[in-house]
Amino acid sequence: MKAIVLGIGDELLIGQVINSNAAWISQHLLDYGITTVEHRAIADTAEAIRTALDDTLGQVDLIVCTGGLGPTKDDITKKTLADYFDMKMVFDKALYTRIKTLFASRSILLTEAHREQCYMPESAEILYNGLGTAPGMLFKEKRSAIISLPGVPFEMKYILEHSASSFLGQISSDTRPQYKTIMTSGLGETSIVAKIEDILEHFPDTLSASYLPSFGSVRVRLNDLSGSGDATELNSFTAQISERLGDLVYGYDDESLVSAMAHLLRAQNKTMAVAESCTGGMLGSMITDEVGISDVFAGGVIAYSYDLKKKLLQVESETLLTHGAVSEEVVKEMLSGLLEATGADVGISISGIAGPGGGTPDKPVGTIWIAYGSASDLRSKKIFINRSRTVNRKYATFVALNLLRLFLKRS
Amino acid sequence: MKAIVLGIGDELLIGQVINSNAAWISQHLLDYGITTVEHRAIADTAEAIRTALDDTLGQVDLIVCTGGLGPTKDDITKKTLADYFDMKMVFDKALYTRIKTLFASRSILLTEAHREQCYMPESAEILYNGLGTAPGMLFKEKRSAIISLPGVPFEMKYILEHSASSFLGQISSDTRPQYKTIMTSGLGETSIVAKIEDILEHFPDTLSASYLPSFGSVRVRLNDLSGSGDATELNSFTAQISERLGDLVYGYDDESLVSAMAHLLRAQNKTMAVAESCTGGMLGSMITDEVGISDVFAGGVIAYSYDLKKKLLQVESETLLTHGAVSEEVVKEMLSGLLEATGADVGISISGIAGPGGGTPDKPVGTIWIAYGSASDLRSKKIFINRSRTVNRKYATFVALNLLRLFLKRS
Repeated sequence: MKAIVLGIGDELLIGQVINSNAAWISQHLLDYGITTVEHRAIADTAEAIRTALDDTLGQVDLIVCTGGLGPTKDDITKKTLADYFDMKMVFDKALYTRIKTLFASRSILLTEAHREQCYMPESAEILYNGLGTAPGMLFKEKRSAIISLPGVPFEMKYILEHSASSFLGQISSDTRPQYKTIMTSGLGETSIVAKIEDILEHFPDTLSASYLPSFGSVRVRLNDLSGSGDATELNSFTAQISERLGDLVYGYDDESLVSAMAHLLRAQNKTMAVAESCTGGMLGSMITDEVGISDVFAGGVIAYSYDLKKKLLQVESETLLTHGAVSEEVVKEMLSGLLEATGADVGISISGIAGPGGGTPDKPVGTIWIAYGSASDLRSKKIFINRSRTVNRKYATFVALNLLRLFLKRS
Repeated sequence: MKAIVLGIGDELLIGQVINSNAAWISQHLLDYGITTVEHRAIADTAEAIRTALDDTLGQVDLIVCTGGLGPTKDDITKKTLADYFDMKMVFDKALYTRIKTLFASRSILLTEAHREQCYMPESAEILYNGLGTAPGMLFKEKRSAIISLPGVPFEMKYILEHSASSFLGQISSDTRPQYKTIMTSGLGETSIVAKIEDILEHFPDTLSASYLPSFGSVRVRLNDLSGSGDATELNSFTAQISERLGDLVYGYDDESLVSAMAHLLRAQNKTMAVAESCTGGMLGSMITDEVGISDVFAGGVIAYSYDLKKKLLQVESETLLTHGAVSEEVVKEMLSGLLEATGADVGISISGIAGPGGGTPDKPVGTIWIAYGSASDLRSKKIFINRSRTVNRKYATFVALNLLRLFLKRS
């Protein structure tokens, strides 16, 4: 089973919106054994949609379109699909009633545009949208099935997860490719490959490896495209590579660095806190993205100004004046003060020059100090990364989490 | 001038990586008057690359490829392009010397894989990569020019901004489409349209409007595709719509809500701080993404646990016990305590049930309390959003920032 994901909307082509839908849809389809062979994004004109259908119909089993189903004039996907497949538009009373009830309960005004949204292509199957007014549609055409979804991510996801699941179940395939991703942090792509080169040489033809570097981590993905359903070799090579990489490995597949760290904290019955200067809350935000983290994460302090470093973390004025806010001495005092103020067992503090301004010859943009550990075993490390402000901050956050993970693992 | 952006890599098609490169590249090309007509993402196989080239060569002036230039086995773009255009691979001594020097300065080991990266297609122009070992390439083919870039975002950006700029300047076009985006927060897409419907009716044929809803905001984009270079009508309609929407408008084009808020804080010579429970640092992180925010943002407290709400923000145990952490009373005490502890003039506090767990019949998942304002004028608002944990948190962050913006604007 093969699919193409087709994003419709000028906002994608002028770069105003990043097409995160395509990635999510492809992941979701893989659960049904449906492999995405192409993503496309095109303009929201009837011509572009027709050309894309001419190009792709019959090339794959399924085409999933997103975008252009809203109530406004620029939303032309539904009309274009109906024309393309030569279907009349008919008023869907049940849909209208549902929207009316929903709006009454939320005290929202029903407009003519909402009423017009209830005209649907005659032979399309309607896919209920539990989170918005524009339903999805399923066209069971002979050459390829077509699922058309709104572009708003949570509505799109709702429809694919709920209303399209029975159709996806029907066409799902057993001979799906298998993947295993080894999540690492601490070394670059080339050095990782150098470490496991001899293992890679023993790979059978059905197995290959890919490397995805990002912000202080490299994901090593093993791909078995044979569709045999047998995971013996995939698992065996995953184990061999993991053993070789040792502490660099923090998890598998979707496991996050935060979840790996939380696992160690729980096992050791410890709590943690954070004190952030240049990352300004990014570390705390990343940690609390994790569901159910409250048993090990207490919180912390965003000490962006000198003043808050002193007031909330008891950093000495003297230390700030002598060494500057970006220094080993200050991150250590930040962490001591944090552990004292919060009562957490371990913690992380970060202070750095995220850029683009603020650099000096001594401390250029990208100089970042991290302290980590416990009150009785307080460690620190300087890192340097000179990219964009956002990248510098993300990198620091990731490195800091990994330092605390290794600290916990080895303690 | 038209372009296609071609992402190469299985990680895109299995949804492991979101193709943010395509959006960035399209934005960047627009600065040169080059319009992107399609994004594609394909597998990293020679066959997929050749098929995509067969399909797109000659259809547009420029094809920008990303991915597959790294040092590992799965990186096959360079070789495939060289084969496709019938070019020999030749060793580039200057490139090798540069990498050797770079690595020596960073004490990194040079491997055989790095040496192999210095073989380049004979007639391709090399685009220097200041942030990595894989250079980009420019193929000036008659049918379409091709720029091939690494998939790592910051390396890709470096090459396009620096090494490809003179070529892009040469082919840049003066007859480019013009866009103006009005950034709004406070109403949904349909209500916005209802408010400006009569203005839209007076649009000339060359002008259209698009609506991009996301997390508590709607971007209204006016599109002038005529290529006339005359912005009179675009500006005039932008002004009319802005006047109608009033306080809902917080900025234009790339302006962020944080920057709009910072602008008001500076004008009023005020500082701000944040106290976050369910958002866990996301608000602080979003604020500090903004360059040069330190003159108005002091920092704050991530009070994720009951204990830290009491210790760092002086929330009364009594209040927590009586009303629960997600309550008007608690966010108000959080904000009072925050302003007291930090000395900031105004602030925001957030406490909510981000989900998926933790809901009760009284306070279902998605119930979020926000307090905002100053010590002498402390306000609060309850919002409700029941989507994913991440969406709920982002939405709360955005709404809270907008509440403080309106507070400042009206005070």
